[in-house]
Formats: sequence, structure tokens, C-alpha cells
Amino acid sequence: MYRILNTEGRAKRAEFHTVHGVIQTPVFMNVGTVAAIKGAVSTSDLEEIKTQVELSNTYHLHVRPGDEVIKKLGGLHRFMSWDKPILTDSGGFQVFSLAGLRKIKEEGVTFRSHIDGHKIFMGPEESMRIQSNLASTIAMAFDECAPSKADRGYVQASVERTTRWLKRCLLELDRLNGLEDTINPRQLLFGINQGAVYADIRIEHAKRIADLDLDGYAVGGLAVGETHEEMYHILEEVVPWLPKDKPTYLMGVGTPANILEGVERGIDFFDCVYPTRNGRHGHLYTNRGKLNLFNARYELDDRPIEEGCGCPACRRYSRAYIRHLLKAKEMLGLRLCVLHNLYFYNTMMEEIREALEQGRFAAYKKKKLEDMAGQDVQE
Amino acid sequence: MYRILNTEGRAKRAEFHTVHGVIQTPVFMNVGTVAAIKGAVSTSDLEEIKTQVELSNTYHLHVRPGDEVIKKLGGLHRFMSWDKPILTDSGGFQVFSLAGLRKIKEEGVTFRSHIDGHKIFMGPEESMRIQSNLASTIAMAFDECAPSKADRGYVQASVERTTRWLKRCLLELDRLNGLEDTINPRQLLFGINQGAVYADIRIEHAKRIADLDLDGYAVGGLAVGETHEEMYHILEEVVPWLPKDKPTYLMGVGTPANILEGVERGIDFFDCVYPTRNGRHGHLYTNRGKLNLFNARYELDDRPIEEGCGCPACRRYSRAYIRHLLKAKEMLGLRLCVLHNLYFYNTMMEEIREALEQGRFAAYKKKKLEDMAGQDVQE
Repeated sequence: MYRILNTEGRAKRAEFHTVHGVIQTPVFMNVGTVAAIKGAVSTSDLEEIKTQVELSNTYHLHVRPGDEVIKKLGGLHRFMSWDKPILTDSGGFQVFSLAGLRKIKEEGVTFRSHIDGHKIFMGPEESMRIQSNLASTIAMAFDECAPSKADRGYVQASVERTTRWLKRCLLELDRLNGLEDTINPRQLLFGINQGAVYADIRIEHAKRIADLDLDGYAVGGLAVGETHEEMYHILEEVVPWLPKDKPTYLMGVGTPANILEGVERGIDFFDCVYPTRNGRHGHLYTNRGKLNLFNARYELDDRPIEEGCGCPACRRYSRAYIRHLLKAKEMLGLRLCVLHNLYFYNTMMEEIREALEQGRFAAYKKKKLEDMAGQDVQE
Repeated sequence: MYRILNTEGRAKRAEFHTVHGVIQTPVFMNVGTVAAIKGAVSTSDLEEIKTQVELSNTYHLHVRPGDEVIKKLGGLHRFMSWDKPILTDSGGFQVFSLAGLRKIKEEGVTFRSHIDGHKIFMGPEESMRIQSNLASTIAMAFDECAPSKADRGYVQASVERTTRWLKRCLLELDRLNGLEDTINPRQLLFGINQGAVYADIRIEHAKRIADLDLDGYAVGGLAVGETHEEMYHILEEVVPWLPKDKPTYLMGVGTPANILEGVERGIDFFDCVYPTRNGRHGHLYTNRGKLNLFNARYELDDRPIEEGCGCPACRRYSRAYIRHLLKAKEMLGLRLCVLHNLYFYNTMMEEIREALEQGRFAAYKKKKLEDMAGQDVQE
């Protein structure tokens, strides 16, 4: 159940009720590809850094350890010891970006595992069966994520197939949710809007999938090569055609600025590897700009990454110490940086929700963008 | 101040009072070479796994980030955010094992950094100055750790030089502790008994260094190639000649069995990289034998590493999950294994202390060795 608490323009402050608890939106989902957040971050750590939803990757877990294994172990929640919501992607994005040599047919896609090269077939039904085995809170529909530079003809045909695939996903998940040995019989399904940068194709597609009574709607295939402005434009065009009484999800996005712009255009859910990936490279988000801990200026800096930050890294450790760990290639350095960055993102979402509740999101957004504009912290 | 609470044969249950708190002995020190425990283990984690003393390496910290840097940042305790006792080694062991091309003279040793090859000179005074900059709770004397297979003549001369070096360490640390800008003016000094496998040389050396009023006495140069039986024999011969009113420290030792044998022979302090190193390879200690999580039999095993274990890994995660993380090369897998192994060691020391208090150490030791005898857990 999705309940809007406040709006400001198109921006929404809402609650999404699931079998694993209520998600307060707008929300940033924390990416744990193989059922673990990169950087030795545990689910105990996630509880400390305000994570609401963990996101895992269907393709990766299907390949290793195998969704059947996870099902036998009671599903993803029990496997990774996390009782809050989990969203699984459909595997589609990885199939189209990671896996070697692939063949697309109406039934689905044949491709090779990036681990051992063995042949795998995945179509809508397979994706639903895997996600049902994983027993995530929210399953994503299996779609084709066409290249952003693909021509109209290709994109048009691809989107039509994605619509047919979506209907098959809906039927199959409905069937799976009714089976006796299904771990989460209330697994939700989000559809995915595609259409690359062609606004008319996307709008037409949005109308088609809006007719299906899905639990939520994602905008996919963005942040894959187009400019930020193109992305914002697409959101402005498409989001109004998605059902107002359902949550929206902008897949794989993005920078803090992208998120603020997305919220303004009506997005509820976000996910991105930036905070983990940047953290692992010593690039840290602060309210005064980004900070690169490898910079020599931090050698003797005994302040936390950001003064006043409540993350497990800032509560206890100095820039100088974390810099030393990074330079010495000690894993603890990466862990502390990832914890800080995820906490920064999760806290920003909390601030966004509060601003929306108080009808001051526009002002909040303006100030946040100004604060973060610095290239590095030069204090 | 060292206070013996109980004895059983030569085994001692004691307390060692330091400026950073009381150390309950026998104790296992947890190794954090470059001011961090391998495996992304933070000092917050250490507080959860019953760590009493953290051990850092003088040579590594001198090379990176530099002891002067750590001094400017307020010393090692502040640098790594750990307010309990820290022991630093002297750098001697690393100089003689890690560093390239070295030249030993009466003044000290010239060698090349293992990081960038630059020339470094370290003698007793340099080691004390570095350790004073680090401001550890306990500094170790600078010694030569002669190869266990060295001939008598070499060992005899080496031990005599180590004695002269020890006197210089004592003088220099005394001077440093009196300086105004010294961070820890109550830094303690432990001397190190050497003599390879020659019991008579070791006994003679023990008598010589016992005359100096040091804060503690280590037995060094063991666990470097000789058999366990040779090591136990040396301890039986030498420990009785070390001062009874001072703590003893068996450097770099060892397996749980080695520790039990060491305690029986009068040792208070231990340290070893086994729990961290084995943890990083998925080798786990349990009371029913060692367990290798890479073994396929754990694929669907949803029990904790060890039933009833209170470590952060066992309280929350299954063998199957941790095995998956290790196989997927997720850092979290290493972290959970290291936490479990250190907790196992620290808990064993707690059990040893309790057994000594209750005069049942011999029985405890016998049972523990029997329990751990399994090669792998075949449940």
C-alpha cells in the first residue's frame, strides 16, 4: 500500500507498506550486489547507517551461490540476516551489460555466465522464478535495457517486447505467489518504463504499462550514456503518465544532485553504486563538497571526514587515520569510507523527506546543491 | 604493577596495571600491524570481541605513515581510536625478516625499506624514539632475533650484543620518558630473552637481563623454525630464571595448543597472526576442531560457525552465507572470519583465566586440547 503524505509540486513524501515493513520515501536503496554491501559492510552496519532498503542483483545471485541454494536457506532475508525490505533487480540489466555473447528472442535471452562461461537462458518466467526463490520484498520485471543511442526502430520494437515480457512476468509471479512452498507469497512487482531518449515512445509505453495493476513503476534505461539534462527531460515527460497512486523508481541513479532533481520530478526510489564505489576509492561526500582522502593535505588532519556527521567513521576516526589506512591498503579504510558515503546518502534522503513534510523542499534543494558544489574541501 | 592472583604449578593468573588500564593475564594480544587489524576490523569491533591489548608494529608504522606523523596526531591511541593498552614491538623482528639487504653493527642495523627501498638505520635509541613517538603502553627492547639454526658462536655473540642494546634501550627510554613533550611519560619497557635453541645461552642471558629492573620480560626468537617440543623445552628451562614479580611474554606464539602449553610454563602474554591470517583464508577455530568454510559441505549449512558462540559473526550469520561471501571474494566474508577467530582466542584466554582462578587449569587444558583435536568439523 502506497500512501502520499505530502506533495510539493511533483515531489512526493510517501509511505510504502510491505510485508517487511514500511518504506519512507523518497528513499535511496543501498546496493549489495551479491547479498553483501561492498567494503565489508555487514547488515549490522546497515542498521547503524539508516538503510531502509537493501538491493541485491538477481543475475549475480543466480550465478553464485544460486537462487535454489538461497531458497533452501530460507530466502535472501534469512540468508543475509536482514529483516527490512529488499528489492531485487530482474537480471535484465546485467544480462545486457555484463554477460558475454547473448541472443535475444521472444522467449528471452541466452547468454554466457561472466564467471565460468556456461550458457544461461533467462526470460520473464525465469527471472520471476529466481526472484521468487530469493523471496525479495519487491521483484523487478524482466526487460530489455536498450542502448541509449539505439535507433528509433530498434527501441520501438524492444519496448513492445518489453511490454509483452511484463505481462508474462505479472502472470508468472501471480502463479508463483500462489504456490504452497513460496517463501514470500506477497512479493511485489514493479514494471519498468523503457524507450531510451525518445520521449514519445516512453510516454506511449508508460500508458500501456499503467493499465496493468502493478505495485510500482520504474523508469529504466537512464543514466546509461545520455546527458543529465536529457535524463531530467525524460522524467518530466514520462513521470506524469505513470500511475499517481503507485511509487516510482528511477533505476541506477545517481549523484546527490541527480537524486534531488529526480525527487523534484516525482521519483520515490533511487539506487546507485556511487557511494560504495567512490568510498572504495577514498572519494567522500560532504556538505562542503567532495573530498579525496588520498590528497596529501589530509596527512595530519585529525578532524573527522565531516564535522558533526553521525556515521560510524566520523564518530570515531580522523581523516589522517583513514587516509593512512587507504594508503596502506588496509580494508578498514575502504569500509569506513563506504559507511560514510552511504550514511551521507541516507541522511540526505531523511533531510529531503523532512523538507517535503514542511513544504520547503525547493529551498532545501537549492541550498544543498550550493553547499555540495565545491570540488574539494579546502578548509 | 604486576600482581599475581593465583598460581597452578608454574601457570599464573595475574593483573598488570598500566596507564591505559589493567590487563588481565594470561592474555592474547590482537595484532594490528599498521594500526589496524587485517580484515576491516575496527577498534569498535575489537571492543565487541573482548580484546584487551592491541599490538602494532614499529617498523611498519615508522615506514608509513611515519612515527612523527603519529606523534603529531597525538600518538597511536588517539590515531587509531583505542584507549586500552597497546604494545609495540621493537622493529627488530621485521628488520631481520622483512627488510632487504641489511648490515648489523654495534650501533644498530642499516637496511632498506620494503616499500620504497630507501635506506633506514635503526638501533636501540632509534627504536625507543619511534616507540616513544607512537606512545604505546608497552615498548619492546630492540634486539637481534638470530635464526633458530644459527651456530652457537654466532648466537653467543648476538645475545651479548642484544644485552648491550637492552641497556641502551633502558637508558634512552628513561631519557625520553622524562622529556616534556613525551605523550606517554609512563611508557613501559619489556626486555627480550634470546639464545635460539641453546638453553644454556638463554639461561645465562635470562640471568643477565633479570638484573635490570624492566617492566616485563619476553622470550623471543621462538616459533621461527624449531619444533613445538624444542619451544616447550626452552620455556621450561628459561622461564624459571626470569623475575617472578614481572610479566612474561612469549612473542609471536601461536596455536591454541601452543598457548595452553605456554600458560602451563608460566607465560602471561601472547600474540600471533594466526587468527587473522587463518580467518582471511576461511579457516575457523571451533571447540570441535578447525573448519574450512570453502568446503562444499557448508553450502547449505545454516548454522553459525559454532553453536553458542557469542561473536558478531556467529550471533547473526550462517556458515552458508559466510562461505558464499568468501567464494564471491566479498570483503565481509574475511571480516566475519577474522572476528570469529579473534573472539575464539580471546574467549579461550578468558576461560584459561577462570580455570586458573578455580585451580582447574590442568583439567581445562586437557579437555580443550581433546575438543580441538578434530581436523575439521564433521557434524
